[in-house]
Amino acid sequence: MYIRTIDWKNNKIRLIDQTKLPRKLAYLDIDNLKNLWQAIKIMQVRGAPALGAAAGLGMYLGIKDYPGSDWSGFSRRLNKAAGYIASSRPTARNLFWGIERICRIAENNKKQLIPKIKKIILSEAKKIMREDMVSCRKIGACGAKLLKDSSTVLTICNAGILATIDYGTALGVIYRAKEEGKKIKVFSCETRPLLQGARLSVWELHQKGVDVTMIADNTAAWLMRNGEIDAVIAGADRIAANGDSANKIGTLNLAILCKYHKIPFYIAAPKSTFDLKIKNGHSIEIEMRKAEEVSKILLKKDIAPFGVKVLNPAFDVTPHQLISALITDRGVIRRPYFKNIRKILEREKCV
Amino acid sequence: MYIRTIDWKNNKIRLIDQTKLPRKLAYLDIDNLKNLWQAIKIMQVRGAPALGAAAGLGMYLGIKDYPGSDWSGFSRRLNKAAGYIASSRPTARNLFWGIERICRIAENNKKQLIPKIKKIILSEAKKIMREDMVSCRKIGACGAKLLKDSSTVLTICNAGILATIDYGTALGVIYRAKEEGKKIKVFSCETRPLLQGARLSVWELHQKGVDVTMIADNTAAWLMRNGEIDAVIAGADRIAANGDSANKIGTLNLAILCKYHKIPFYIAAPKSTFDLKIKNGHSIEIEMRKAEEVSKILLKKDIAPFGVKVLNPAFDVTPHQLISALITDRGVIRRPYFKNIRKILEREKCV
Repeated sequence: MYIRTIDWKNNKIRLIDQTKLPRKLAYLDIDNLKNLWQAIKIMQVRGAPALGAAAGLGMYLGIKDYPGSDWSGFSRRLNKAAGYIASSRPTARNLFWGIERICRIAENNKKQLIPKIKKIILSEAKKIMREDMVSCRKIGACGAKLLKDSSTVLTICNAGILATIDYGTALGVIYRAKEEGKKIKVFSCETRPLLQGARLSVWELHQKGVDVTMIADNTAAWLMRNGEIDAVIAGADRIAANGDSANKIGTLNLAILCKYHKIPFYIAAPKSTFDLKIKNGHSIEIEMRKAEEVSKILLKKDIAPFGVKVLNPAFDVTPHQLISALITDRGVIRRPYFKNIRKILEREKCV
Repeated sequence: MYIRTIDWKNNKIRLIDQTKLPRKLAYLDIDNLKNLWQAIKIMQVRGAPALGAAAGLGMYLGIKDYPGSDWSGFSRRLNKAAGYIASSRPTARNLFWGIERICRIAENNKKQLIPKIKKIILSEAKKIMREDMVSCRKIGACGAKLLKDSSTVLTICNAGILATIDYGTALGVIYRAKEEGKKIKVFSCETRPLLQGARLSVWELHQKGVDVTMIADNTAAWLMRNGEIDAVIAGADRIAANGDSANKIGTLNLAILCKYHKIPFYIAAPKSTFDLKIKNGHSIEIEMRKAEEVSKILLKKDIAPFGVKVLNPAFDVTPHQLISALITDRGVIRRPYFKNIRKILEREKCV
């Protein structure tokens, strides 16, 4: 089954409503910025690369009905859309990267007529999606080389099709290894609080015919100690210049367990997830989400005493020292990260 | 509020139905072995020391209506009860310890008349409960010395009142520190899959006025990295002669995180949890529980695709190398564990 997370259809953003999975594969059509903001906020669409695409298309939604023909008014409208989309979630680099890319292409074409600029923006937003499709396949190709036949991979959250346009980063590596004929077994951490592992990764891996087993997050150390895990591959929401990587809360946990058990720990992400303006992970803003995501399962089933105090950071930062390699669309990056990230991201192709 | 997990009332076992917490503090009265077996299996009563008490009282339920007056028939009935109770859950040492203790006292009194032996058994079962109440307070006193004022402690699962008769082991340390006037802040891992942290520890800590915050299990590493945790204290279900300790799945995880972050990791348990017949943790049988505990929250809310493969070990084993000290009712045991466990467990008192 071909699954496409986000697309532009009939002048609207069409996306899979990820809050409905795994029970229902339902689509949302979004034609205004407010609904997109909401969809990002409540995570009907999530995953750094998918957010980059949502931001690009969202910018077009923000300006497509601008009635004027003056650049200055149009530019104000564009900046307003940018600020609004950017306020939805703070951590994933790709969201901001998508916004900035649209702003840049508009700025570069500001001498054009407004209808023409609108067309250029839509075309750029579509290009972001096309590039992601290529990019994920490059990540898959680079990463699959790191996996031997009959490997067992542990992953967390969802860095798969549903986090990108149609292929995945961390799970893209697994899909590619499978395409190459390797037998890969996957353990998926359920990924509390929002259970993206259980709901999304298990679902899409199953759709794609991958042998997947779900575990409670607490089971990872036990599996490693029993020698069951050959590698951990996770996605990323933002990667600093030194390689420090923000990803779903619990990722740091797995990286430390890998260090202790001498298991390779990989981060898979496209160039657009790197934020070379920040030196290290300390500058990455960690989104704090509401208590009910923890105290009520999927905001429905209460599991704790009413009014319980909860701390609910959505991400943690894995220091580069714990990362065996960064699997990118430009190639696999190894230590020293600060130097090699710059060098390798400049390449045009995966080598 | 005084909370008592298990008691003997009106010729029945009265216990708090822990599957109903935190919504309802409901009691179960159990007057036959089958219902007790079921209550242990589905974890209406759980926690190693509470299971020791349940086993003792259960042995009495198993023989109290024996109509004969012959030791050999009575002894067969006793052994049948022993085997049946022992088949409920495999990991917690205290369950077997309680059974063995009753068998021993019966054997030692086999020359007595059967009604007298029955009385002796009930009296021994009650003694197990009284001893646990004292024992937990000793653990609390020994452990509290390890906590400075204004410490923040992270714990997993429930090693509190609800895992014992009325005081707790790991949480007993916290209650005692609080009684001594120390300000202790607690983070409680929710403890997937069965959420004993969220449902039980958060509940009882709140009842006892302790400052407690719930987290998803995935958040532990982030808290430690931010310098928020001064110590981790967990309970144990079985401790081998070398100090290797089986406890709720996820405990090994925390021990490794502590090692990485140089945070003390303590196990708190009474002498009855030690199994000196086994050399190390490799011989501890790990209970595998059913998939639905992971794929459906509290067996109700589905969170994964139907028919998903699940691995659900209930426990993991933390190797002694990762344990900073064992807090027992005979004192705090430090390395070398093999030697010191034997030496200190022979003591009569906490020193």
